[in-house]
Amino acid sequence: MVEEFQDRIGRLSRAADLSGREVLLVSHLPDIRWASGFTGSNACLLVTPSGHLLITDGRYKEQVRSECPGLEAHIVSGPLEVAAAAVITERQLDRVFLQQSRVTWGTAENLRSACDGQVELVARDPLVHLRAVKSDEEVRAIRKALTITEQVFEQTLPLLKEGITEQEIAAEIDHRHRLLGASGPAFDTIVAFSEHAALPHARPGNRPLKRGDVVLMDFGGVVEGYHSDMTRTVTFGRSDKLFLEAYEAVRSALLSATEAARAGMTGEHLDGVARQVLTEHGFGSAFTHSLGHGVGLEIHESPSVSSRNSDPLPAGSIITLEPGVYLPGDFGIRIENMARLNADGNTILNASSTELIRL
Amino acid sequence: MVEEFQDRIGRLSRAADLSGREVLLVSHLPDIRWASGFTGSNACLLVTPSGHLLITDGRYKEQVRSECPGLEAHIVSGPLEVAAAAVITERQLDRVFLQQSRVTWGTAENLRSACDGQVELVARDPLVHLRAVKSDEEVRAIRKALTITEQVFEQTLPLLKEGITEQEIAAEIDHRHRLLGASGPAFDTIVAFSEHAALPHARPGNRPLKRGDVVLMDFGGVVEGYHSDMTRTVTFGRSDKLFLEAYEAVRSALLSATEAARAGMTGEHLDGVARQVLTEHGFGSAFTHSLGHGVGLEIHESPSVSSRNSDPLPAGSIITLEPGVYLPGDFGIRIENMARLNADGNTILNASSTELIRL
Repeated sequence: MVEEFQDRIGRLSRAADLSGREVLLVSHLPDIRWASGFTGSNACLLVTPSGHLLITDGRYKEQVRSECPGLEAHIVSGPLEVAAAAVITERQLDRVFLQQSRVTWGTAENLRSACDGQVELVARDPLVHLRAVKSDEEVRAIRKALTITEQVFEQTLPLLKEGITEQEIAAEIDHRHRLLGASGPAFDTIVAFSEHAALPHARPGNRPLKRGDVVLMDFGGVVEGYHSDMTRTVTFGRSDKLFLEAYEAVRSALLSATEAARAGMTGEHLDGVARQVLTEHGFGSAFTHSLGHGVGLEIHESPSVSSRNSDPLPAGSIITLEPGVYLPGDFGIRIENMARLNADGNTILNASSTELIRL
Repeated sequence: MVEEFQDRIGRLSRAADLSGREVLLVSHLPDIRWASGFTGSNACLLVTPSGHLLITDGRYKEQVRSECPGLEAHIVSGPLEVAAAAVITERQLDRVFLQQSRVTWGTAENLRSACDGQVELVARDPLVHLRAVKSDEEVRAIRKALTITEQVFEQTLPLLKEGITEQEIAAEIDHRHRLLGASGPAFDTIVAFSEHAALPHARPGNRPLKRGDVVLMDFGGVVEGYHSDMTRTVTFGRSDKLFLEAYEAVRSALLSATEAARAGMTGEHLDGVARQVLTEHGFGSAFTHSLGHGVGLEIHESPSVSSRNSDPLPAGSIITLEPGVYLPGDFGIRIENMARLNADGNTILNASSTELIRL
């Protein structure tokens, strides 16, 4: 096994805190990738005190050898949990830790019955916390992805001319990510004009850009499996008081959150900092989602920066800060940066300004 | 509600076969989209004998109104299963049908405890079978997606010149899908040269195309949420006996499967038809995956055309037929069409030939 993965699977094994007859069954593919380097679409990973084992199917026979040298692999046909049950039974293990938010109810029940009911299933998922803390190697990949995303943003601004559609801009954003070296978009790119931008998760449509529009763009790319995530809202001629006030409120919320963000504060607390600023500006009720989320091998991962996360944000995590204001029927504004948290504060990974760009 | 969705949710309700105090909890997003038209990323749908209810969060307040007029919607914060439990308790329902392959083990347990243990959870998922049969409207969208994909294929062939990389070709394929009206790629586009093509799920890399290469391309697009899926393998100068024999074996397997495919035969049977042809040509062991899968709102859905599916393939389903031969270290070949099954046979949705293209 490659050294980085040897280290990770070792840390995973320690975090799982396994005793002699216990096993951790990892079923979530990004977790398997994180722990082993395997990137196939069908696998489960068994972590036991006496060694680790990857189970996958015939399509990945070659791939598992090249991606996970040194890791024991079983190539099977049929349900993975049945193959896992065979190993569990053979090795006389009797307690299985499952990823409660990842494994399906059906798989858990199949596993139980394939073990003839002779195992106890326990909810335990150390990966959520392990993956939140990014290694230097992971930070490098995320920075690379974000650098491409910021280059794409620079290249996209000159394309914003009267008549271009949301879809055309989104297609250009995705294509330019690929041309600059991303393996693909990090998520479905959002490009939304004016009233459409009031839907936080709008999908690009065919409406042409016209003078007086607000343009919200939320986009990112994937490099070596790692994601970037960035939002900018620019004005294509709109400059009335309401819009400018809302923009300054959102930007002010972002700056306050940036000043406040540090490891050890709770997600709830940091979310509250931005929300408070928007409330003071009279836009509190127009901020209808949480402030941010962790980013890594998945576009949304731990830690959550929301009013529902009362856990401290870990040092070394990478999060988004993305306050927004949505005024139905009129416009929406969101500005989003990525930050890496440390005990004293944070490092913003973005290089581009958040000042209002007027086209 | 739009008529098509009224019809679908009605059929879903009947297929779930609910008695007075039973409820079907639909948690899988493509299923929710199929039944209600809602396309947001966080929702659950409760189907009860006395009416239906969509639960989602604040981000989708506007969207749920515009996509699902007439459907009762609850906007909540916090876990959806807790909100669902409140409805279940309030309406005095006591048996919950869950989608066993969709709902997570944790969600099922949370639901049970949020109902104070006063419910019985039962595995039942009528959507797998309902969605397998495509309506005319769905066929239209899939045909539209596949027409774009075939146009993209025509446009891509002239780009295959010495020196172009797998990634560059994949980027062009994706971009052209968007320019022709797809909302995005149907899956991670595969472009693989020669020995790389021997990995059935290869990801595009930076190796430049050279004379004597085999080029495998597996690609598709999304239109109105519906997917296309197509594979062609062309030769960039390679014409030795082994390659030509393998190509003819794969094509022959595809043609035999096409002749045989009809509703009512099992997935196992149809898979066996293609496998038999490859075995007769001496390539049986080089066909390391199943023959095909259903396609619709998801790229892989029911019915499976594999040795593990002993159920009859339903009339009106749309499947892929994609035999392949993979010779590690040398090359891989796959040819894939889409077919709609009826009682007498099938209609191939592709217009393009499967004859070997020599560049």
